[in-house]
This record gives sequence, structure tokens and C-alpha cells, in this order.
Amino acid sequence: MQEQLQQKIDNKTKPVGALGMLETLALQIGVIQNTLSPQIHKPHIVVFAADHGIAATGLVNPYPQAVTAQMVLNFIQGGAAINIFCRQNNIALTVVDAGVNFDFETDVKINHVKIAKATCNYLEAPAMSKQQCKEAIAKGGIIVSGIFDNGCNCIGFGEMGIGNTSSASLIMSVLLNLPVKDCVGNGTGTNEEQLKIKIATLEKVFTLQQLNTLANQPIELLTKIGGFEIAMMTGAYLKAAELNMVIVVDGFIATAALLIAQKINEKVIDYCVFAHTSGEQGHVKMLEYFKATPLLQLGLRLGEGTGAALAIPLLQSAVNFLNEMASFETAGVSNKA
Amino acid sequence: MQEQLQQKIDNKTKPVGALGMLETLALQIGVIQNTLSPQIHKPHIVVFAADHGIAATGLVNPYPQAVTAQMVLNFIQGGAAINIFCRQNNIALTVVDAGVNFDFETDVKINHVKIAKATCNYLEAPAMSKQQCKEAIAKGGIIVSGIFDNGCNCIGFGEMGIGNTSSASLIMSVLLNLPVKDCVGNGTGTNEEQLKIKIATLEKVFTLQQLNTLANQPIELLTKIGGFEIAMMTGAYLKAAELNMVIVVDGFIATAALLIAQKINEKVIDYCVFAHTSGEQGHVKMLEYFKATPLLQLGLRLGEGTGAALAIPLLQSAVNFLNEMASFETAGVSNKA
Repeated sequence: MQEQLQQKIDNKTKPVGALGMLETLALQIGVIQNTLSPQIHKPHIVVFAADHGIAATGLVNPYPQAVTAQMVLNFIQGGAAINIFCRQNNIALTVVDAGVNFDFETDVKINHVKIAKATCNYLEAPAMSKQQCKEAIAKGGIIVSGIFDNGCNCIGFGEMGIGNTSSASLIMSVLLNLPVKDCVGNGTGTNEEQLKIKIATLEKVFTLQQLNTLANQPIELLTKIGGFEIAMMTGAYLKAAELNMVIVVDGFIATAALLIAQKINEKVIDYCVFAHTSGEQGHVKMLEYFKATPLLQLGLRLGEGTGAALAIPLLQSAVNFLNEMASFETAGVSNKA
Repeated sequence: MQEQLQQKIDNKTKPVGALGMLETLALQIGVIQNTLSPQIHKPHIVVFAADHGIAATGLVNPYPQAVTAQMVLNFIQGGAAINIFCRQNNIALTVVDAGVNFDFETDVKINHVKIAKATCNYLEAPAMSKQQCKEAIAKGGIIVSGIFDNGCNCIGFGEMGIGNTSSASLIMSVLLNLPVKDCVGNGTGTNEEQLKIKIATLEKVFTLQQLNTLANQPIELLTKIGGFEIAMMTGAYLKAAELNMVIVVDGFIATAALLIAQKINEKVIDYCVFAHTSGEQGHVKMLEYFKATPLLQLGLRLGEGTGAALAIPLLQSAVNFLNEMASFETAGVSNKA
């Protein structure tokens, strides 16, 4: 299939390779779907939201924890960046309460699968129980299955959770074997002093939770310092790959969740298209680990799946040129001498 | 206006700066349109096509000259990459015969403004007369005016012309004061040996046409080694800026035309959004000259305006977030402590 796809790409009315990364992308999507005429059907972004016990301490985050719930309500009202980009690009959007510290009315149009109202503060105790972690992973899978059953074959994952760059940094530190300080960035906008406190706090967590022993135990690692949204996203990645879906990987936190998913099943990476390079320092090193060259470099650092939503038109372009462009023969265009 | 726009951007429900280059873009478009609520209306790509006398020698191009006309017909039939991307992104497309070496039937749906059937071979004589050059610039302006009158406020320019990377390389060499060899790339796919011949040929042209004397004479330079499509595009840039349109700059040849336009009126640059970094070596140095960070880095090297067509959804995203996102106040979201 790969060879036939390459031949089809090379016969299009353009110099060989002239569509650059779109050609690689068309090839990858064709291989995932095992067809010479791949399609993007009903693209979908799922935003997993949850709170983090650590955030209540104020040691790692400039915004109050309450913002997680406020932003979920903003998603529902259609006023957040992810809403705008999904509307523009005809992408369906599902918002999931994976563990927000707020009692949403049951008629609020989100997926109500709260594991608990925030994780525990991992400065004091593991973030969650193993049971909770497994439940979150399972629920992430169930959500993706439902979306797949509805006809979607291309999915991206976003997140909302004040304090969740801290979990992502710790995951990165453990799985990439890098010092904590190399994995911590400004998140949603800490200043230099707050950054120092954030690093010191996370170094303390690293020691306290003995994270150095967990490089090959992804579930344990999630249990110690994860978030419910990250655990659910992990399950979502695994299920999407199992279902042969094209997975659009967003930024720093989404890529950290992918690190976990890949430790559980390394094949997941074959289904992944990297949407963008985040402005959050640390993301570049994760991308290097995956040998990934993302589609966009816009300096985004917002989360919510915004990078994925902005990249999906390029996936559509890749598939469209493969399906719709004329070949040298059909167009009567001379090829190179 | 700039300050008010920045304030509006910073009050959106996101950390300051978290939408990266989309924020810069929203600001620029707002400033161009002098409004807090900018809009992208009827985006349009104009592809200027023309032939180059030098191409008949076979010294600079792997594809035969006939491909220019064949590709124009491919555009008309909707089978080229630019057709696919324009259709996908709701961009209108106009194809212009600026000087193709072929007699198109008058009912072929292109803009019939042929200056001549190809330029002269600039190894032997100047590419065009000064009269032809001025006529081409004027016609480019007239085409843009017509599109503007039809309600368009965002325009991108593409080109088709076997051999036109050679003109672009010579323009770059003169206006950026760089050796010819630093400005010549593989074009649409020359091999290493062909590349050596291309460089040697263009070095000969440089001397023969005394290009070193023309760094401050953009019209003379166009006359000596330009193409009709490049001259027409120059006029199109100048008119679009005059009409306060947002200009989406495509790749290597489109940026070379912009070098000429900017020499004629330096203000044109304020209206320009750079769509992408081309895979054609040399483009990066032109972008550095303009201090430009393009929106996309996809390794495209196809021309036709394809980079511009792929970038236009990001312009739409920039404008959409500015117009549609909730502010901290309206959404009831807490800002930083």
C-alpha cells in the first residue's frame, strides 16, 4: 500500500516532493486507512477537563483553580478559542468533566464522567488511586468508541486543568529521563519568581513520590502525579489507535499523555499526526523524542486542543490533493525530460 | 488603534500571548483595516502565468516550456493543487495569461492580458521592453482593482512559468546583494548537474546584462531579467497595498516580486502576511531580509499560490478569535491573581 500510495502522489501534476509535508501526511493517512483514497470523516476534538490538588496550594499556577470550571462553562457557551476554531473548521467538539472541582448541573451539555472532584495534592499523597486511574483510562476509551461509532475517523484531544502543566512536566522528566527544571515552563503565564517556586515544588514532588523508579511503570506514574484528564486522554489515545483512527496530537500536556500511552502500547504512535510545536518550553524535547516534525509552529501555548483544531484543515488538504489532483496523464501535462 | 486592538486581544479568555502568531496576525489585520473587528471578505488568489525565453534553451529548467500552457489548462479544468486548496478553503481563483507561449481560445476562462508570447531569452537580449514592463505592471493593478471592486479585501498571488525561478534568483541576487550561487536552488526539480549549469548560466546573464548596476532600479531590473508574470505581480502588490487589502505572500517567486514592489513603494510591506517558508533554498534569506516569520513551514516548493491558499484559514482564525472569543468579563472567568 505504501508503495502504491507513493506512486499515486508522485504522478500528480507537480514536481516530486513539491507538496512537502502534505505528501508525507497523505501517505501516513493512506497507510492508516489502508487505502489509496483516504478520507477525513467527521473530525472531532475531545477536551478533557479536571482539577489538580496541587493547584489549590498556589505553588505552581498563577490562575486560581476555579478557572477550570469557569472555562468549562465558557466552552459550553461557545466563547473559548477551541469553540471558535472548531466552528470555523467544521470540527465537532465534546467537553468531558473528567474531574473538575465543581458540581455541574446534570443538564449542562458535557460528558459527565467525573472520577473525583480534583486529584489529591501530590505534595502530600499520590494524586489518585490505582482504581481511579484505571477507571479514567477506561472511560477515555469508551468516549472515543462512542465518537468512532458515530462515523468519526480523525480525532484530536485537548485539555483544561489549572495546574496540569505540572503533571505533564513530571511525566516528561520521568519518561525522558531529564531533570525536572528542563521540563518546566511558564505554563499559562508564571513570572520568573513563580517559575522558581514551581520548579522547586516539582523537584520536591519528584523525590517525595520516588518518581525515579517509575520510568517503566506508566500507570503507577499517572497514579502518583497524573491528572484525571491526562489519564482519560491516555485511554483515549489507546482506543483511537486500536480503532485505526487518525490522531491529531496537540501541545505540551497532550504530548505528555502520549508519552504515557506509548509506554503502554508503542504502536499508538503510528496513528499520530503532530499538530504544532507549543510555545511551552519542554515541548520541543518531547517532539524530538518522538522524532516528530509538527505541522504548525505558531507559538501557541493555550491547550484546549487549539493546535489540533488549527491543523485539521491541513490534514484535509493532504487527503484532498491525493484524491482530487490530476495526474500527468489525465491532465496532459508533460513530465520531466 | 494598535493599542486598543492589543487590549481587546489581551482581554480574551486565554493567558496573554497564548495564541502566539495568531495574535500578531489579528493585530496586523486590525491595523490594516483600521478596526477592532476586522473581517476577511472574499479571499482571492490570482495566478499569473507566463513563459520565459531562457526556458527554451533548456539550460535552467528540467520541464519543457510547454508545461506552462499545459498547467494553465489544468488550472481551468480544476485539477491542479491550487484548485484543490482554493476549493477547500473557499478562496476564489483567477488565472491570468500574462505572457504564455500558447494561443488560448478566447472562451477559455482566464484573464487574457498577454503581453507577448514569452519574454526574450535574456542570454541574448533584455527580457522585455520598458514599455512592456510598464504595461504588465499596470495590468496587474487593473486586475486587483477589479477583484477589490467585487468585495475582496484579502488577496494572494501565485505564478506559473517554466524557468521563472531563474528570474527570481537574479532579482534576489541583485536586490539582496548576494552571489548568484546563493540565490539559486533546485527550482521544480533540477538534479546536481543541472543545478551547476543553471548557476553558470545565470552568472553569465548577471555579467552580460550588467545587473550589478541595477540595485536601485527595480523597473530596469525587471526589464532585463524579469518575467511578465513577475512584472504583473509587482503591479498587483502595489495596487493591493494602495487599496488597503491584506496581501498573502506565497513562496520564492512571489517574494522576489515583492522585493521589486517594495523597491518601488516600501509601504507595501505593511500589508503583507507571509504564508510559508518555501523548500526552495534562497527563500529563507529573502524572508530574513523582510524580518518575516511565515505562518507555515511545510517544505512546499510548488508555486501556484499554494502556500498562500493553505495559510488563509489561519488568517480567518486570527480574525475569528478576535471577533468571537469571550472576554474574561463576559465569560465570568477569573484572570490571574
